[in-house]
Amino acid sequence: MSEDQLIKNYFVTPSQKNAEGVVLGIGDDCAILDVPEGYQLVTSVDTLLEDVHFPINFKPENLAARAVAVCVSDLAAMGAQARWMTLALSIPENNPKWLSAFSQSLHAACKEYSISLVGGDTVKGRLSISITVMGIVKDGKALRRDTAQSGDLLYVSGSLGASAFALSKILQSQDIASEVSNFYTHPIARLELGQSLVGIANSCMDISDGILIDVERLASSSKLSVDIQMEKLPLHPSLQTMPIELALNFATQGDDYELLFSVNVSKRTALKELSLVLDLNLSCIGRLSSGSSHQYTLNNKTYTTEAKGYSHF
Amino acid sequence: MSEDQLIKNYFVTPSQKNAEGVVLGIGDDCAILDVPEGYQLVTSVDTLLEDVHFPINFKPENLAARAVAVCVSDLAAMGAQARWMTLALSIPENNPKWLSAFSQSLHAACKEYSISLVGGDTVKGRLSISITVMGIVKDGKALRRDTAQSGDLLYVSGSLGASAFALSKILQSQDIASEVSNFYTHPIARLELGQSLVGIANSCMDISDGILIDVERLASSSKLSVDIQMEKLPLHPSLQTMPIELALNFATQGDDYELLFSVNVSKRTALKELSLVLDLNLSCIGRLSSGSSHQYTLNNKTYTTEAKGYSHF
Repeated sequence: MSEDQLIKNYFVTPSQKNAEGVVLGIGDDCAILDVPEGYQLVTSVDTLLEDVHFPINFKPENLAARAVAVCVSDLAAMGAQARWMTLALSIPENNPKWLSAFSQSLHAACKEYSISLVGGDTVKGRLSISITVMGIVKDGKALRRDTAQSGDLLYVSGSLGASAFALSKILQSQDIASEVSNFYTHPIARLELGQSLVGIANSCMDISDGILIDVERLASSSKLSVDIQMEKLPLHPSLQTMPIELALNFATQGDDYELLFSVNVSKRTALKELSLVLDLNLSCIGRLSSGSSHQYTLNNKTYTTEAKGYSHF
Repeated sequence: MSEDQLIKNYFVTPSQKNAEGVVLGIGDDCAILDVPEGYQLVTSVDTLLEDVHFPINFKPENLAARAVAVCVSDLAAMGAQARWMTLALSIPENNPKWLSAFSQSLHAACKEYSISLVGGDTVKGRLSISITVMGIVKDGKALRRDTAQSGDLLYVSGSLGASAFALSKILQSQDIASEVSNFYTHPIARLELGQSLVGIANSCMDISDGILIDVERLASSSKLSVDIQMEKLPLHPSLQTMPIELALNFATQGDDYELLFSVNVSKRTALKELSLVLDLNLSCIGRLSSGSSHQYTLNNKTYTTEAKGYSHF
């Protein structure tokens, strides 16, 4: 099968032609896209490599769902609407069953986030996926990590640790309830939350590499100190019966595609309302202040530890 | 070294901050970009994998130059201006010498094409590079492959075959003049030509997978027949003393990042002038007509062969 045929068979869907802002989709040297007037383009790339970012023999339907969510999460962090993506896919063989499951799940995830696949490159090699996402946000309204203000309260959405806990079970081939394993196999990008935070939050980012390393990134980018109350980290229920050290280990390992954001104290009520509307926990975990120190308090002991989190090199 | 540090050390340059249309570059979840009013966004992704798209132990400076040109060539094919790119880089180790040579050459290539690196993801794995390029083109003015008209003359820029010939020498570790090997190690994306063809050409694409397969793609997309005079293919001088079959083999293997385009007969004079201005050969190699046949004539014999070219699967 030619690469052209493979792309037509698995990656071109009729709905792509009528997708928002798509003048020309897959099939030419480039896609042609319309960014509406008064909006800026936001873009980001993520790579998922077998045995590094997901286990060997990970199901293709889970892989596609996870890859799209991980990438779209970066758009959520900017308060953007998802629009378009390109896919660079490296696969060891042309396996119709695998490709069919992967592409169906990919198209379902695209539909969920209203994002269209507008370009791709498929090569033969070790299983790996790179997705470049593109979104739009009103001029000057994008959320950033370097714009937190001294005195801001620091919040995180949802719960932490279920994804890392699920992965540990998956790697040991142990049974796990699907509502927990879904945190790893089908994470949810917080697009709606991100868009709702425009005008409320002073800063925002997603937490993918571990909440502590990402807290430090936000504080450092904004040139501020940060104090985190570790007992306020919203542990997922499946972690709450564990010893606290073990639970915190899962909760700080990363792969939780939640949003970390800071707001002025005056926005607490607005956040409570937003939490109700979205049916999503929004937990205050600390505070930012002037300076450059990073403090973590647990059981009244204060640590100024090195941030933990995933690092490749 | 953390991934953040690696990115700062090698991939962030001061000039990126002031690059055209870049509101926020590398360092946040997404880059923020301004597409000027009256322009459309064009985008494409390409992957280069070691031992598939380039030889093992290929020099990092050549790899970066080649990767950028290969990807920018897709923007050239649309008649677009290059603007931004994201880089997904998979490397087996943090080798400072390799990374330094790679990144310096990458930045030089970006400068050459006025394209800015605005996002990246660096992971540890087998050497592979995926670049998503983004460019801009005036509303409705992008060149496409599906808009050729019956009666159009078909042209190709530059010369063919030097890249494949150079690669064959490189793979056999044989000496080769740098002006030939450069066709493989430092191909030139025809950005200026592409932009100049807006308003002249009825259709355009780049030839990367082999001219014959790409001729068929252009003709099929435009729902037309095509007749190619094989003796009119502009063979690179280094191929001209070879037996014609061998020369044509190199000339149709692909990796020539030239533009294939069609024009109305009335544009022949405009093309002659353009060829002089750009100091670039523009060769008429055939003609499009109504129907759906693909004919190749060589030495008065007509073939209706299967297209040759690179295919992964």
